[in-house]
Amino acid sequence: MSSPPETFLWSGAASGVKQSGKPDLGLAYRAYPADAAVVLTRSALPAAPVRQVRERLGNRETVRGVVVNSGVANAATGRAGRRAADRVTDRAADLLNVDGEAVLSASTGVIGRMLPDDAIREALPGAVDDLQEDPAGFARAILTTDAGPKRASETLEDIDATLAGVAKGAGMIRPDMATMLAFVFLDHPVEPDWWQSRLERACEGTFNRISVDGQMSTNDTVLALAARRPDRDPLGPEHPAADDLEAALESVCGRLAGKIVADGEGATCTIEVTVTNAGSVSEAETAARAVAGSNLVKSAFHGGDPNWGRIYAAVGAAGVELDREALTIGIDGFGVYGPRGETGPLPDGLIESMQTADEHRVEVDLGAGEAAYTCWTCDLSEEYVTLNAEYHT
Amino acid sequence: MSSPPETFLWSGAASGVKQSGKPDLGLAYRAYPADAAVVLTRSALPAAPVRQVRERLGNRETVRGVVVNSGVANAATGRAGRRAADRVTDRAADLLNVDGEAVLSASTGVIGRMLPDDAIREALPGAVDDLQEDPAGFARAILTTDAGPKRASETLEDIDATLAGVAKGAGMIRPDMATMLAFVFLDHPVEPDWWQSRLERACEGTFNRISVDGQMSTNDTVLALAARRPDRDPLGPEHPAADDLEAALESVCGRLAGKIVADGEGATCTIEVTVTNAGSVSEAETAARAVAGSNLVKSAFHGGDPNWGRIYAAVGAAGVELDREALTIGIDGFGVYGPRGETGPLPDGLIESMQTADEHRVEVDLGAGEAAYTCWTCDLSEEYVTLNAEYHT
Repeated sequence: MSSPPETFLWSGAASGVKQSGKPDLGLAYRAYPADAAVVLTRSALPAAPVRQVRERLGNRETVRGVVVNSGVANAATGRAGRRAADRVTDRAADLLNVDGEAVLSASTGVIGRMLPDDAIREALPGAVDDLQEDPAGFARAILTTDAGPKRASETLEDIDATLAGVAKGAGMIRPDMATMLAFVFLDHPVEPDWWQSRLERACEGTFNRISVDGQMSTNDTVLALAARRPDRDPLGPEHPAADDLEAALESVCGRLAGKIVADGEGATCTIEVTVTNAGSVSEAETAARAVAGSNLVKSAFHGGDPNWGRIYAAVGAAGVELDREALTIGIDGFGVYGPRGETGPLPDGLIESMQTADEHRVEVDLGAGEAAYTCWTCDLSEEYVTLNAEYHT
Repeated sequence: MSSPPETFLWSGAASGVKQSGKPDLGLAYRAYPADAAVVLTRSALPAAPVRQVRERLGNRETVRGVVVNSGVANAATGRAGRRAADRVTDRAADLLNVDGEAVLSASTGVIGRMLPDDAIREALPGAVDDLQEDPAGFARAILTTDAGPKRASETLEDIDATLAGVAKGAGMIRPDMATMLAFVFLDHPVEPDWWQSRLERACEGTFNRISVDGQMSTNDTVLALAARRPDRDPLGPEHPAADDLEAALESVCGRLAGKIVADGEGATCTIEVTVTNAGSVSEAETAARAVAGSNLVKSAFHGGDPNWGRIYAAVGAAGVELDREALTIGIDGFGVYGPRGETGPLPDGLIESMQTADEHRVEVDLGAGEAAYTCWTCDLSEEYVTLNAEYHT
């Protein structure tokens, strides 16, 4: 496991936690310390690994490894679940020969089942032996109902650095995150406070603006590790490449978020909802989320049905200031309502777009101010219900 | 149309607004004035009939008739829609020989389509001729995706009076009402301000606590008419039968609300969600609505899957104060989680109850205070999506 200072290593293994025998154990490791930035679920009932990460990052500065298991969320498992999470990271730390607190964990899967940490600890030596410079196995091992791995990366040529992102998430995603895990690895040092602030900002514009079914999970975690390196100075806000790195971070998070929403459980299309001319950003956000969260709107898009009245109803019910005479609604670039309450026959091309496009756009102009907000969701299909009526048992 | 002073008359007709040819025009009438109490949608984009009712009840005290059409909501139709609604009530008033402002209208159906008021006006003479002492035809004519008519009544023997309720609503129902219309008819006079306050209170405990898909519509209306009668004194808060009437009103509204949620689009079961020991009623309500509004919870009940982890996740995400050590969750009377994070094997009988009962109960004890709240929803099925992906076109 000796490797050059710029290198993160990853592996994926099957521990048997998933009865299917699919990979369910991901390990990330670096032979040198890394600075960590993190955004965690705001649930009042965070899972054991979330509590572990929060505590460990409050106690120490650097991280050496991350153990991720899929299949069991280790949530609603109380203190016993927390001890199980610690047994897993202790075992990984032993094998990696690092301080136990330098390894973090993340879990995703069924809530309320005790973490089978014996099985995971037995699989860890194999995962350690298999560590390699390609995160493909790690990306596969963290999935649950995802259709496939979700990866995005950016190269920063000016500083000869790479930002590599890996995520999972299919259902239970919404603004304020949800059952999603995302890991970002930067092979360049950073100023830790600036890095944390940039991750929070990137999450706000990306992971916090996607919604599959309006649920926030117990396990949501976005962890961004930046390599400490003796050969380079930490990159901070005054560095000439700061803007580039910030843009790269937003790009990686945005592309991962896009992959998550496109892979929403049962989803067949994505819907971008933009609200403009609101009285405040907060009101724009409320209205956009009301539209994106409407089962009726999402079902209509599933059916390829230009039923804009449901968008209208969702906006009306959102409790935000609007000018009824100025309000306009557009779908896929076609005006469908207003201003002045005008409605006519459906525009040529709209039905075809509704029935064939993979990516839809909803635009709502509230006519009440100058603020705007955009969020993303997917359609609601029969398959979503089927998947979620049968997942547990 | 001469009839005794205690009598309301009703009829239903087919005007052709519904392409299926099913009844779509309901008329209610009384040969003497009635006092009206009303609870209307809080949507910022109320439909034309809602604006009409609000305006007319602000201008005058009594009502003589109500015209209800199903099939087209007359929402998002601007001033032209409002004029169309007035043309309908003007025609009804002419035929009934009453003041035009004494007739109110209500509509339910597709949003954004102009009211075909010509067809409705042509069908009105037949509806007037057919007025009778049984609301069965009226109850059928106001339906959209409902499985069947929704009626409930109570007899007040001490005052020889009857309270008759009729409602529609299947999808798009939630706390704060939604695409639901309800009409209550009392053949006894009341003190109008007290009547209004009792209707608001009854709605708060019934129609405002049901949820099918979390949507509030442009058209929601609950109208309660009480007959003015020269032979009787108005019933008010000091009357010995006041408590009985209040209880009867809550009973009728509650039973109609129960029928609406049981007939949720695609629903196969109902779910009663009770949150206890919250820090405040508002927090109890927030938590209860978070559980009742969760697609994941609703899908699990559809599948007969005792996946209580989704209830746990919804409670955690609700943003309310809770004591993690004291929190308990129960389903159908079986304890499934807590206290002190304890989880064991699923209780005997729970799976059978999940898979066979028509009415389920979720109980969440937050362990943080003394306040409680109960609301009702239904499961989320594939059929809900199918119905709502195909409704418009």
